Formats: sequence, structure tokens, C-alpha cells
Amino acid sequence: MTTLGPGVTFILGGARSGKSAFAEELVISSGLEAVYLATAQSLDGEMEDRIQRHRDRRGADWKTVEEPLELVASLRTQVRPGRAVLVDCLTLWITNLMLAERDIAAETQTLIDRLKDISGSVVLVSNEVGLGIVPENAMARAFRDHAGHLHQRVASCARNVFFVAAGLPLKMKG
Amino acid sequence: MTTLGPGVTFILGGARSGKSAFAEELVISSGLEAVYLATAQSLDGEMEDRIQRHRDRRGADWKTVEEPLELVASLRTQVRPGRAVLVDCLTLWITNLMLAERDIAAETQTLIDRLKDISGSVVLVSNEVGLGIVPENAMARAFRDHAGHLHQRVASCARNVFFVAAGLPLKMKG
Amino acid sequence: MTTLGPGVTFILGGARSGKSAFAEELVISSGLEAVYLATAQSLDGEMEDRIQRHRDRRGADWKTVEEPLELVASLRTQVRPGRAVLVDCLTLWITNLMLAERDIAAETQTLIDRLKDISGSVVLVSNEVGLGIVPENAMARAFRDHAGHLHQRVASCARNVFFVAAGLPLKMKG
Repeated sequence: MTTLGPGVTFILGGARSGKSAFAEELVISSGLEAVYLATAQSLDGEMEDRIQRHRDRRGADWKTVEEPLELVASLRTQVRPGRAVLVDCLTLWITNLMLAERDIAAETQTLIDRLKDISGSVVLVSNEVGLGIVPENAMARAFRDHAGHLHQRVASCARNVFFVAAGLPLKMKG
Repeated sequence: MTTLGPGVTFILGGARSGKSAFAEELVISSGLEAVYLATAQSLDGEMEDRIQRHRDRRGADWKTVEEPLELVASLRTQVRPGRAVLVDCLTLWITNLMLAERDIAAETQTLIDRLKDISGSVVLVSNEVGLGIVPENAMARAFRDHAGHLHQRVASCARNVFFVAAGLPLKMKG
Repeated sequence: MTTLGPGVTFILGGARSGKSAFAEELVISSGLEAVYLATAQSLDGEMEDRIQRHRDRRGADWKTVEEPLELVASLRTQVRPGRAVLVDCLTLWITNLMLAERDIAAETQTLIDRLKDISGSVVLVSNEVGLGIVPENAMARAFRDHAGHLHQRVASCARNVFFVAAGLPLKMKG
């Protein structure tokens, strides 16, 4: 088992790849106080179900904070010594920013600046979405571009990067 | 070349990644009697062509069994000492189960229980489908969820797991 | 940093994975004369922007050749001692061949024959597109098949193969 050090750990994987479960294991096995920073919004029943399943799996040891948009402010408040903050997930944050018509480049830059400064333990989870056919929908292409650029920048300032497939982590960096 | 031991080997890869060819090589190089357990059904010309191409590539050394739905029963019959059984592929099995309106959770559980008990050599091939944009189609999203969950569980009870891209295997476990 | 030797280096990755930037770094750090062989065609504003961004990033040290279709002839002309030729990318080349209704199997075979013979340094970049849901569009499925088959064959004759995700290279071969 990889141990969770200080700084940024980035976990990238496909849908239903087990990336969240792997991230949770990293946090729990660290022995640090576990904070779950959820970017999900319950906009429909399907999402509601997923949020509840994740919550049930984590159990009562976690403090849960829901923050669809103000991720950077929330990190500022939540990250502190003795804690590990798990952000799940960056792709939903980008979706929320796009729906709210925020300036993605500016928001992303603020996040990266924050991550470079962080001394506590932060685990960021995100969906790799760029390995299928080019989407016909322009909005989906824009989303894919934003996600890919963000992933490169987060990976660049992360101490450890894992790619997760079928529940198995592959270390890409660290 | 990796040698094929007893127990479960799981091979995950994209479309046209060379995962089936890699699986076939593993089986052939094992020197065991080779059984091909096909979950494909020839429902249209495109699929018919693919099945025939796979069959031509394998040649006459293989015993071929076609079983779109009753995979677990077929494994019970086909797996035995001195044999390697190649299941190609799990994603088509899930598709067939969905089309037949079977209870996917129950069928999956039965497969996992069977795999945990298997002492012979079984190679399972499946398509990773979760690394693109979220599909707009609800059926496709459900399929992707089923596939991802199954992959995690199969990987968990497999002795070896490979991710194949561009014909090259990457060992994820074992 | 990996150094670029003679022969074929193949770099596979998703959209916005940082595969082009990684390929450019390989070429630049080799100290060889850098040639960029672009298969992109500016058919719309979105593509025009991407081409310009790539061009700006590379800067003035590169010689740029644009060749949407006659890739093999162009390689014949451009590859020579003291040079590294970066082909970006194979998936666009396949798209262009399909739009021009060329014989993909024949063109692909000619490329593979050429790559097997090459003594200079060639870096080929391509998009992995086979890890999402099966596309509903038959043209997209055909494209995915062509790309996957080509990737397997290029990887087979490459000295080094990298899979790039979030800007991080994973060595698959070499």
C-alpha cells in the first residue's frame, strides 16, 4: 500500500474504475483526519443515488463538505495539519463551472496556484475522458479540452499521480 | 513472454487494442488445450465478419464454444485440468444479459463466486469503455457502470491483470 | 528524460493528454534538427486555432511541413541523418484518408513498410480513441477500427512506445 505523504496526490481513472475507492483507502490508511470535499450536486435521481452510495461506502469516519464551485476557497478552509482532504472530483467541478458560465482558465489557474502552495495532504480525483471518439457535441469537446488541460497541470504539481483501471492503481509519478 | 498459470488472468483493453490476440498468445504459449468461449452473437453482418476474422486467426487448434448468456454454466463444463479457457469477451456478455433483461447484479455475483473457486486456467478478455465522455444515452451509461463494476471485481479475484494498448501488454497485477 | 535514438518512437495518448508536448520535448532534447510534419488541415476555426497554438508553442526552431495525405512520400523526403521528424498525428491522417476515400489498408501497409526501413529518427503521435463506449455512428466505428489496427502495427515496428496521460509518459516498449 502506498502511504499518503504531504502535498498533492492526483488520481485519474475512467468511469467506474474504482478511483474513488482507491483514493478513500489512501486517506483512511494514512491515519489522518479524513475530509471528503464533494463537488457533486444532486441535480437528478441518478446523481443522487451515486452520491448516497459513495456516502454509505465511506461511513461515519469522514467529515463531508459539499462545494460544487468554490473549490479553492474550500481547500483554503479545509486543509490543515493532521488532515487529508479528498476532492472528488475535478471533472464534476469543471462541469459545474461550465454550467455556471465561469471563466475556466482563471478558475483553473487559481486552483493550480493554491495546489503549489499547499503543505497539507490533498488527494484529487478526476475522470479521464479523452480516450474515446471525438464527441460530436461542441460543449462536450470543450469540456474534454478543459479537463485534459487541468489534468496536465495538476499532475505537474502533484507529488504522486496514479492511473486507476479495474480498481488497480498504476503509478505514473512519484 | 508471460506464462499462463492456474487461476484467472484478466485482460482489459480498448477496441482494436490487440487484447484478444494477446490473450490467444498467452493460451497458445501455455501448451494447454485451447478452448475459446465466445460470448458474441452474429446479430448483423458487421459482427459476423468480426467473429469470422477472429476464428480465422485462431486456426484449427482451438475448440470453440459459443455461449452468449450462460457463461457461468459453460465455465463449469469447460474448465478442467490440462486446458486453458479463453472467454472473449465480458463486455459482450453484459450486453447480451442486458438485451435479455437478466438481473446483472445476480449474474455478476455468480460469475465472481465461480471465478474464486476455479482451479484451472481461465483467461477473461474485456473492453475498457469508461475513458470517454459520459454517454448521452442512459442505456450506454448503465452498460458502462455494469462493465466497470464487473472489471473491478474480476481484477480483484484475478491472479494476473493486463491492460493492453496498441498490442502491448502492461501488467497491472501479478 | 528519455533520449531519442534512431528508428521509430510511437507516442499514444488521449485528447489533451500532453502527447504532442511530450513528443516535442523528445525531439528538442535530442539536439537533432527538428521537423514537424503536420497532418492537420485547417477546415474550420476550431482546428485553425489548435494548429496555431501548437505552432506558437513550438517556436521558430522547427521546420514545419504540412501534409494531410501523402505522409509516406513526405517521410521519404524529410527523414535524413541529423534530423528528427515528428508526425502529428496519425489519427488525423486516417481521418483525411477516409474523407478522401483512399484505400486505408493499402496506405497503412505502405506506411508500415516505410517505417520498417527507416534509419533516421521519426516520432509518431496518435490519439487512442478505443476506450469509450462503442460509437453509434458507423463511420466513427470504422475510424476507430482503422486507428486501432494502425496503432498495433506501428507499435510493433517501433523501438519505443509511450502512453501519455495527464502529461506523464508511461513506457510501454523499449
